Amino acid sequence: MSERVEVERKVLSENDKLAAEIREGLSAKKILALNLVSSPGSGKTSLLEKTLYVLDKEFNIAIIAGDVQTDNDAKRLERAGGKTVRPIMTGGACHLDARMVVKVLDEIDIDKLDLLFMENVGNLVCPSGFDLGEDMKVVLMSTTEGDDKPLKYPSMFRKSSALVINKIDLLGLSDFDIDKAEKHALQVNGGLDIIRLSCRTGENINHWCDWLRDKIAEKKE
Amino acid sequence: MSERVEVERKVLSENDKLAAEIREGLSAKKILALNLVSSPGSGKTSLLEKTLYVLDKEFNIAIIAGDVQTDNDAKRLERAGGKTVRPIMTGGACHLDARMVVKVLDEIDIDKLDLLFMENVGNLVCPSGFDLGEDMKVVLMSTTEGDDKPLKYPSMFRKSSALVINKIDLLGLSDFDIDKAEKHALQVNGGLDIIRLSCRTGENINHWCDWLRDKIAEKKE
Repeated sequence: MSERVEVERKVLSENDKLAAEIREGLSAKKILALNLVSSPGSGKTSLLEKTLYVLDKEFNIAIIAGDVQTDNDAKRLERAGGKTVRPIMTGGACHLDARMVVKVLDEIDIDKLDLLFMENVGNLVCPSGFDLGEDMKVVLMSTTEGDDKPLKYPSMFRKSSALVINKIDLLGLSDFDIDKAEKHALQVNGGLDIIRLSCRTGENINHWCDWLRDKIAEKKE
Repeated sequence: MSERVEVERKVLSENDKLAAEIREGLSAKKILALNLVSSPGSGKTSLLEKTLYVLDKEFNIAIIAGDVQTDNDAKRLERAGGKTVRPIMTGGACHLDARMVVKVLDEIDIDKLDLLFMENVGNLVCPSGFDLGEDMKVVLMSTTEGDDKPLKYPSMFRKSSALVINKIDLLGLSDFDIDKAEKHALQVNGGLDIIRLSCRTGENINHWCDWLRDKIAEKKE
């Protein structure tokens, strides 16, 4: 097994080097870069649709939409008004890596960009190990998943700066206890900013957009 | 990258060898072995709780409950009446592998067993590549995820023999189109047995249990 560990270490160290270059390039242009991670179906694409709807005229936004197969998400985001949306199909790989991001960034004119979203593959485990050069990770969970997810998948919650709890319109229709979910998340990572919202009804989407406005402003300072 | 591919191939071939041994051992005792796979939060543990409730007196059932961290699921299943429940904490790994299963099987008295569930880590990508020696994979999805999941994560649906669509009590509260979901699943794998149910209300749990009874009977022939 040591051969395997050694190869994994090498892959990760190459990835980290490339991610550092991405980070430097984006930071030089004062672009806020967010890596969106979650289980499949938590609502990453829906959140981006709502975000485009509110912030698309205020900021220049680009989105890299990662998926194992299909460019469904990228198409949805273009329909939602996204002017710069690029799909990455990983072709079986369970996460985005810095190499995939570099290739796509080469095709984007980043000169006037304020905000770059990297929508990762839906997977609560593997993407946590791969730095994409983002400023921060934002993890989503939804009220239809278990409230113990932060305890079961701690690495992802530990490495994220913000937690979005989506589908609050469905609270009460399952055994999900949102206060318990928050407690578990903070137990794993006390520094998390937490935003409860519903992409479906639009409730609290303004909180999320205000959070983004703050982070974009901080980045430009 | 070829070094990486070579190591991955070696790991998988070692896994396949071990899985074949597991399969042979379980088949010699005519035990039906199912590998349960899904996103986090689709309801694998809830489905097993309901299954225990209905079938625990009819059959000898053992459950291996895999998770990245915590033995929460194993504890839930013991509370639900599971007499033989063994947790596997993968400690960061994104899937169960045959080596982990062998270790746990050594601790279980399989002589009188009818049915073995292996509840995999919640992950729609990686577990599809690792044979655990099961007779078949059962993939779960829930009505709160997107109905295009089979197209986005085709490998898992292709390698499964049955699809359980859980949380039908929440149909109509999201944009999920269950007929479209089935169509997508059958497009990827025309041989899937599909069961729609709700672990929360219990609706159609009898269909699932009948399906299990049939498969257990076939195994004993």
